[in-house]
Amino acid sequence: MASDAMSPKITVELLRQLRQAMKNSKYITEPIQAYIVPSGDAHQSEYIAPCDCRREFICGFNGSAGTAIVTEQHAALWTDGRYFLQASQQMDTNWTLMKMGLKETPSQEDWLISVLPENSRVGVDPWIIAADQWKNMWKALSGAGHSLVAVQDNLIDAIWEDRPPRPSTKLIALGLKYTGLTWQDKVTALRGKMAERRISWFVVTALDEIAWLFNLRGSDIQYNPVFFAYAIIGISSIKLFVDSKRLLEPAVREHLELDSPSKPDLTVHCFPYESVYTELQAVCAALAPKEKIWICDKASCALTQVIPKAHRSAIPYTPLCLAKAVKNPTEIQGMKMAHIKDAVALCELFAWLEKEIPKGTVTEISVADKAEELRSQQKDFVGLSFPTISSVGPNGAIIHYRPLPETNRTLSLNEVYLIDSGAQYLDGTTDVTRTMHFGTPSDYEKECFTYVLKGHIAVSAAVFPSGTKGHLLDSFARASLWDAGLDYLHGTGHGVGCFLNVHEGPCGISYKTFADEPLEAGMIVSDEPGYYEDGSFGIRLENVVLVIPAKTKYNYRNRGSLTFEPLTLVPIQLKMINTELLTQKERDWVNDYHRKCRETIGAELERQGRKVALDWLIRETEPIV
Amino acid sequence: MASDAMSPKITVELLRQLRQAMKNSKYITEPIQAYIVPSGDAHQSEYIAPCDCRREFICGFNGSAGTAIVTEQHAALWTDGRYFLQASQQMDTNWTLMKMGLKETPSQEDWLISVLPENSRVGVDPWIIAADQWKNMWKALSGAGHSLVAVQDNLIDAIWEDRPPRPSTKLIALGLKYTGLTWQDKVTALRGKMAERRISWFVVTALDEIAWLFNLRGSDIQYNPVFFAYAIIGISSIKLFVDSKRLLEPAVREHLELDSPSKPDLTVHCFPYESVYTELQAVCAALAPKEKIWICDKASCALTQVIPKAHRSAIPYTPLCLAKAVKNPTEIQGMKMAHIKDAVALCELFAWLEKEIPKGTVTEISVADKAEELRSQQKDFVGLSFPTISSVGPNGAIIHYRPLPETNRTLSLNEVYLIDSGAQYLDGTTDVTRTMHFGTPSDYEKECFTYVLKGHIAVSAAVFPSGTKGHLLDSFARASLWDAGLDYLHGTGHGVGCFLNVHEGPCGISYKTFADEPLEAGMIVSDEPGYYEDGSFGIRLENVVLVIPAKTKYNYRNRGSLTFEPLTLVPIQLKMINTELLTQKERDWVNDYHRKCRETIGAELERQGRKVALDWLIRETEPIV
Repeated sequence: MASDAMSPKITVELLRQLRQAMKNSKYITEPIQAYIVPSGDAHQSEYIAPCDCRREFICGFNGSAGTAIVTEQHAALWTDGRYFLQASQQMDTNWTLMKMGLKETPSQEDWLISVLPENSRVGVDPWIIAADQWKNMWKALSGAGHSLVAVQDNLIDAIWEDRPPRPSTKLIALGLKYTGLTWQDKVTALRGKMAERRISWFVVTALDEIAWLFNLRGSDIQYNPVFFAYAIIGISSIKLFVDSKRLLEPAVREHLELDSPSKPDLTVHCFPYESVYTELQAVCAALAPKEKIWICDKASCALTQVIPKAHRSAIPYTPLCLAKAVKNPTEIQGMKMAHIKDAVALCELFAWLEKEIPKGTVTEISVADKAEELRSQQKDFVGLSFPTISSVGPNGAIIHYRPLPETNRTLSLNEVYLIDSGAQYLDGTTDVTRTMHFGTPSDYEKECFTYVLKGHIAVSAAVFPSGTKGHLLDSFARASLWDAGLDYLHGTGHGVGCFLNVHEGPCGISYKTFADEPLEAGMIVSDEPGYYEDGSFGIRLENVVLVIPAKTKYNYRNRGSLTFEPLTLVPIQLKMINTELLTQKERDWVNDYHRKCRETIGAELERQGRKVALDWLIRETEPIV
Repeated sequence: MASDAMSPKITVELLRQLRQAMKNSKYITEPIQAYIVPSGDAHQSEYIAPCDCRREFICGFNGSAGTAIVTEQHAALWTDGRYFLQASQQMDTNWTLMKMGLKETPSQEDWLISVLPENSRVGVDPWIIAADQWKNMWKALSGAGHSLVAVQDNLIDAIWEDRPPRPSTKLIALGLKYTGLTWQDKVTALRGKMAERRISWFVVTALDEIAWLFNLRGSDIQYNPVFFAYAIIGISSIKLFVDSKRLLEPAVREHLELDSPSKPDLTVHCFPYESVYTELQAVCAALAPKEKIWICDKASCALTQVIPKAHRSAIPYTPLCLAKAVKNPTEIQGMKMAHIKDAVALCELFAWLEKEIPKGTVTEISVADKAEELRSQQKDFVGLSFPTISSVGPNGAIIHYRPLPETNRTLSLNEVYLIDSGAQYLDGTTDVTRTMHFGTPSDYEKECFTYVLKGHIAVSAAVFPSGTKGHLLDSFARASLWDAGLDYLHGTGHGVGCFLNVHEGPCGISYKTFADEPLEAGMIVSDEPGYYEDGSFGIRLENVVLVIPAKTKYNYRNRGSLTFEPLTLVPIQLKMINTELLTQKERDWVNDYHRKCRETIGAELERQGRKVALDWLIRETEPIV
């Protein structure tokens, strides 16, 4: 394990092989002078399967974000501030670390232009570069006299001897009880949107959109219940591209009505996963002059370019992304149930921690394991929704920390403990962060925690007009920290899927984007401000919240207002709060929240006969004054 | 006057002439099927000179924003919600009003595509369309098989018989006392920025940038102390394009050192205004292969396209725009002085109103006139900085209202009065809005006013990290209104020039843009939330505020923090405040602000012997509890 994380991967031989491949006529007609290795897969997934970890394979760095570029003379990796230390430890001296966000760091384009000989050819696998990224790179390079070349055979795969096969896990068909809508209803609604905009076809490439549309789940990618597939939805036809042996399962065949379709236009035509390219070519060849095809501008360059420009309508968010974001009543009910079960597990965990920590044997890893064990006892548990961030003291200041044997700290009565964790249940996805102290927190720790709490409440209790974009709420989360000269360098919230990806678009709460879609009742996002003191401690307070209509005294232009309802119902540790810093409104919010935790989670703990956790919950939800 | 504003302009004959011109080989080699008339001038100015009011000439609509398009069959005008009523009143039935912002309204591009025959040619004057707008229009039209054509002779000018001449007013040279930096210092600093980015030339097209750079002012455009000119600044040469007779003035000749330049690279080479095109061609022809020219992406298409793409570096904000936005100590001192004088005039005005309103003879127009008269008594007064918005009752709900004889209402003891006004002084520019009631405001009016005040304070007192963009503060201004279900449909603040345009980039406080530049100490913006109840009243509370460093308890990552200092020092009417809705912090803010008004403006009123206004000020700045 240690070598994986902390000692550099030796890449001399791999780089030699890659540079040979860059000149090998087996793969390319003319040699290329640089090869770009992005970190994504062909679906631009955030989490990827082992067979798609090509950037990690070539350079050793295994963080979630980064792009490697290899030229005849150089090898460089671009990544952001979260990963500077990790990348420098995982890469050998053949690699130059390009620290994104620092002024002196050149962009990939600028760097390429500075190191390449004139009229160079830069290669990239068009399947794993998004169309919009291709466009930017193409512009910059061609402006400087170089060319960007789509290399159909992936050159990393060509030199990767023991590359794992693409996963093809069992599919689960979700019934109406979980989804609220049949896949036929969803296809029909989608076609309504297509008809409105006079669109003939829609190419679905995002894995969570395909899973949501067909009410199917898989486990091809860890933490994300998705499966490798493409879909092309026409006004009267449905093409699904997926490994055919996954469709042998009777439950899946029945779910998709493969053997007895009810209607011709709701018949699912299945094709092998790999044939999406040629089928899309066939669809395009048969288009009438004015017909249009929707494709997300973040879809792969390969598929995007199959569609002739005149027929292509590239959209930043697909109608499925938008439909999926607004949860229906069944999904909302499911998310609530999932959060109740999740809270039960966490109350158990925290009650257990109180007893165990003084013994000195509880570590970051053992808490993560215990949390998983307790969650797995809950009904319809499927797995974790992301790797648990379990961090003590200074480790808490590493925002994307994941405990490893060589960093593993023991929980004590002297340090702040931060746990950010979540699970997938058949009825919903959870994501919750609590920051606690099991001894006596310092005044400074309490002060910082209270600023974070004030920010959390400011967002959670915010009332705002319908049509407001989430990014307009981001500063509310920061105002109290800013007043004290503090801040945190991440966004405040992300969309959360329903038994789907824990991060999903198109809404969120962040200062970083302007392109999010407006919040709507039924959307579900996280509210997670934090504060991180390098080398000392980290604080984050995260609830998943549901967008709901707000009752207001007036109703300007009949627009209506929205606010949030917390779905996460886990006590916020009172010991960490400096109540003097709270306004009366904020105190009321904390007490209301804790009353709701006590009522809802208390009833479930009672039902499950979890006496110790119930006692803990009662004690932790005492009103503050 | 009435006909100007309220009865439609008869355009049958004009449209006939324009359509003939569209086919006339005197102007174009091949007929065009549509002609676009944007509202700007060749410098993309917000306010324009009468000779540039081409869109108003052709359709009759004289609002500040709108684009007219004439085809062989149709004539249509696009404008936004502020102007729907006005445009519909000013245009005859030959024109279709296209209400921007409504879902059913097509974009100009979509509309053109829907009405034009195949392979049409759409013409536009390349001088008055910005390069970025040209690009978008060109893309859309060529995607649909049409072409966008630059028509060098303006077709409106061709049919406009009594078109006024381009103004060429006297230039004023501003000394160091007002500018803090000589124009030579500014050119040298600009060249430093150019050298940093290896830029050989910078084409300056924005009138306020030219005025600022050369420390010159004119009065070619009402309210904006600018003059028609271009400049092309090289690493060792300066080309100024301006009507040559303006340079005969000895003071100007001396200021620019035209007759005895101190250094060759600081010698101003003067050219006629019109010769900028050919001179820029000459500059481009002499470029070495890798040389680059800066031009703003909002500059005219005509000038932008002179520069070959390989040599062109289009930037969203020019270094002059950025340098001008951060005021130097002399400018800050001047702005403070201007605001003190402006406050004196307003205190006089409000004291006078208290006495005069009960007589029933004070109207929106007479207050505006009185305000101008009082301002003109102040030292170094030059003129107004924009048309005074003086509005009673329901007129106050029209955000860009300007009183006209036929709308003019009398001020009374029964209605809310809103005045948004400002002036140009040699030492600075002001812009202030106060909303007052001279009788007894209703509880509802007070409630709404207090929400607006809370929003104003939330921005004014905000503390935020250095590097924060203004748009991140916009929601602070709205939170109290949102809580009550209310809102206002304009931004919260704009940059303010120093004896320059009252609206300037690149900073501001608005939910609408993401492309503003970060706030920096020395920048000056307005803080002006509002609330508008259609048919009843309007409320706005506007101060001009200076960005200053803030002292905070901590200093995260040594970034430093910023906050605002109000430059406007005019009492906020206590009668309009429901103090029960204020927090203690907000009450303290109001009292501190009023103490500062009393001290600073009181001293100046005293000095100027304005006893009545002083008494009024003292009374209006009593502390609240």
